[in-house]
Amino acid sequence: MQMPQPDQSVINRRETLAAGLTRIVGAQWVIVDEAERRPYQCDGITAYMAMPLLVVLPGSTDELRQVLRFCHDNAVKVVPRGSGTSLSGGALPLEDGVLLVTSRLCEILSIDRENRVARVQPGVPNIKISEAVHHLGLCYMPDPSSQLISTIGGNVAENSGGVHCLKYGVTANHILGIEAVLITGEVIRLGGAFLGGAEGELDLMGVLTGSEGLLAVVTEIAVRLEPLPEVARVISMSFPSVEKACECVGAIIGAGIIPAGLEFMDRKVLDAVAALIRESFDSRTEALLLCELDGTAVEVDALVQVVNDVARSQGAIETKVSTTQEERERIWSSRKLAFSAIGKLCPDYYCTDGTIPRNKLPEVLNKMAQLSEQYGLDYANCFHAGDGNLHPIIMYDAAKPGDLEKAEAFGADVLIACVDAGGVLSGEHGVGVEKRDLMTHQFSEIDLQQQQMVKCAFDPGELLNPGKVFPTTCRCAEFGRMHVHKGNLRFADIPRF
Amino acid sequence: MQMPQPDQSVINRRETLAAGLTRIVGAQWVIVDEAERRPYQCDGITAYMAMPLLVVLPGSTDELRQVLRFCHDNAVKVVPRGSGTSLSGGALPLEDGVLLVTSRLCEILSIDRENRVARVQPGVPNIKISEAVHHLGLCYMPDPSSQLISTIGGNVAENSGGVHCLKYGVTANHILGIEAVLITGEVIRLGGAFLGGAEGELDLMGVLTGSEGLLAVVTEIAVRLEPLPEVARVISMSFPSVEKACECVGAIIGAGIIPAGLEFMDRKVLDAVAALIRESFDSRTEALLLCELDGTAVEVDALVQVVNDVARSQGAIETKVSTTQEERERIWSSRKLAFSAIGKLCPDYYCTDGTIPRNKLPEVLNKMAQLSEQYGLDYANCFHAGDGNLHPIIMYDAAKPGDLEKAEAFGADVLIACVDAGGVLSGEHGVGVEKRDLMTHQFSEIDLQQQQMVKCAFDPGELLNPGKVFPTTCRCAEFGRMHVHKGNLRFADIPRF
Repeated sequence: MQMPQPDQSVINRRETLAAGLTRIVGAQWVIVDEAERRPYQCDGITAYMAMPLLVVLPGSTDELRQVLRFCHDNAVKVVPRGSGTSLSGGALPLEDGVLLVTSRLCEILSIDRENRVARVQPGVPNIKISEAVHHLGLCYMPDPSSQLISTIGGNVAENSGGVHCLKYGVTANHILGIEAVLITGEVIRLGGAFLGGAEGELDLMGVLTGSEGLLAVVTEIAVRLEPLPEVARVISMSFPSVEKACECVGAIIGAGIIPAGLEFMDRKVLDAVAALIRESFDSRTEALLLCELDGTAVEVDALVQVVNDVARSQGAIETKVSTTQEERERIWSSRKLAFSAIGKLCPDYYCTDGTIPRNKLPEVLNKMAQLSEQYGLDYANCFHAGDGNLHPIIMYDAAKPGDLEKAEAFGADVLIACVDAGGVLSGEHGVGVEKRDLMTHQFSEIDLQQQQMVKCAFDPGELLNPGKVFPTTCRCAEFGRMHVHKGNLRFADIPRF
Repeated sequence: MQMPQPDQSVINRRETLAAGLTRIVGAQWVIVDEAERRPYQCDGITAYMAMPLLVVLPGSTDELRQVLRFCHDNAVKVVPRGSGTSLSGGALPLEDGVLLVTSRLCEILSIDRENRVARVQPGVPNIKISEAVHHLGLCYMPDPSSQLISTIGGNVAENSGGVHCLKYGVTANHILGIEAVLITGEVIRLGGAFLGGAEGELDLMGVLTGSEGLLAVVTEIAVRLEPLPEVARVISMSFPSVEKACECVGAIIGAGIIPAGLEFMDRKVLDAVAALIRESFDSRTEALLLCELDGTAVEVDALVQVVNDVARSQGAIETKVSTTQEERERIWSSRKLAFSAIGKLCPDYYCTDGTIPRNKLPEVLNKMAQLSEQYGLDYANCFHAGDGNLHPIIMYDAAKPGDLEKAEAFGADVLIACVDAGGVLSGEHGVGVEKRDLMTHQFSEIDLQQQQMVKCAFDPGELLNPGKVFPTTCRCAEFGRMHVHKGNLRFADIPRF
């Protein structure tokens, strides 16, 4: 996206708003200067860029409330952002909107060992929670690859997954309570905080989780802490074909085992990793599965045996089981390095994340091979096989005219193939800008309309992160009012305010 | 509640509506006759009664859609009902509303062993799902006490729990997809059906789960099937005081164990059960814990040992561990018979279900003893201790004037004590009519308003199960229209349609 030359009215508006915001958070925390705004112009998907009108970093929940109320009263759009690791453009700024960054709200407020709950502010990086409770033998389970920097607030907004979500579930399964601020500046508190459920209310905590910043800005999160597994061992299994590896995924789950993680890497990824770490993989290997098993020592030993037997009977060329923590980390390192390794192979890559029923893996992977030929772009596969959560890595060269568009079209076709195979557009990265225009492929008009009615119930003026997720604007905002007549919602055709 | 004498206009309205509904479902499935409507006048809480205007039992999703559209077009209120086992009055009929019973929609539509999903209609009794997949070594985990008759549709509406939800989670954790019909007759399909998450959309599946029939009527549910645990063993632990038993609950969880179930019974419950089954419990026992452990044989053996050691160190008088399935069932039978046993002790009882942090158990149980004296009513305790989900059983005599009111006030005070201890009004029974007027104690005005805005986004005319959950009517319906002005929702003060 190209930045148009700002005209004087934009400059004036920026100055007026900056003055108002400065009164709330102090001049230091309102970023007006263009050079200083530049680092915020994209999130984890660099293909989409926009320069925010202003960046504001509130230092407390109260300041954040005042910022939202100020924006609301001045009809300014607001894009919330954590560390900006979204892979779907969820934190892409708006040129006419304020970028609200939560990174200063980064305190762990309390740790309740007895009830296994930590209360944290949204800007706390995911990994910091596990670090803070490690001495208690506890951890916070969801582990997105970005966990070193991605914030828990961003994780809630995207309902993030990670390698271990196969066994332990995604962010939504680990959140016990949320405090959030509506666009009006009003505070809502959702969920049973110390408890497992959100009974006795409409589950607004659930609807907020994964709502990609469209409904409210989360200011406090009560997360569930889990005991650290006694033992974790990983088994690496190499296969002579992609099909055989996919069949083995089904066979492991079919054997009644839910591994802590079950990851797939194809030959191209292995070659890239091998080049990076100067190790080699068996030349007959076309696909590798990494299967982590955790629990008590006796349980894990028994499971490792079963998975090993399944892999052998499914035609694995070789299996390796970690016997020490060091070996376990070495085996996992290939997976952890996969994306950086691919980055060395090509100038740019584009990664998306449709999800499909496990038994459709061979079908959709074949489709990818066809699409690669059709678009003339190379790709590699490294994904969460146990969840059927695909992460095709499409390689392109942004400097080559038309290449990005081809990569996007390739990615879109993969996502359509996912939906057509009975899957969904996203596994863990959200819809954001990237998959917005594909929503109509997954959802009926009624489904989308109902979702937008719920958006409207939170943010009728459509000021919070507009332009994300939904391919059209919210109808009730668009038409300025809703009118209920005999239980029928009618949209009066009135020009927008 | 007393039925007023129906006047002619009510009779006429009933006849007109019956004629319209008969055209959709056939005369056999529209219940007009008063004697035939009588069995439907209450659900599991017999303290609340109302005779429904009409009862209709659609035989297919399409008929159900037509019924809803017809009610919508005629501005008739609709109360959805499964088997009517709600313990909060969620299926209490309305004298001026149609009772929509889903029991004819009772087919298991498909069982997908590979992806571990069953698709079922809402009227299928909970237990039937596990029975249908038992031969595959699978089961449906949530097990409310009512599971022999309560329907999966009702379970979704109430987000039901059960003994095993401590380890396995409540209904919401086991639902993969929902098809539901809006009051307009429009169909929405929610959730990734075959997948673990509901990514790429606002989580309307989550908000529908536990919405107590206020948002839409569920017509198809994709449920997650789980492998049957290899082994389950129960350990019974008797304690000389309620406090010691409560402390042991915390110590078990604190030892890093999440049992499959962890149940509490006090002396009064034990005496009632002993009278029923002619068995006796150690006279020193003031409270009994039942702790179920499941998993692989080696894992369970190890856990049984740990729990046994914890119980001993926490002052247990005696512990018994089941070694066979028969012994396990015998030990559990005392818990399963508890409520019927109490029923023999008193003419009537009233049971509610607040939930508190586990470490607040002694405090709230002490408060109950005080309240019992204050109200002059006896009570007993039998509840899901591991979840902190209380089920105080308040004994009264409905024939004694004022006794029911005292029981209700006692129950309300217990719930208030739960909220004040950092807990919530409900663990698994929902709000319904019973806890409706206490909602303001748990939620702020802003919280309730936001929940009602979401209700309004589904059912702006407030025709679906009105009068439940929220202590006030939905404001947007009350005032007839919503008006958005500069992103502010304004309620125009217009008389209701």
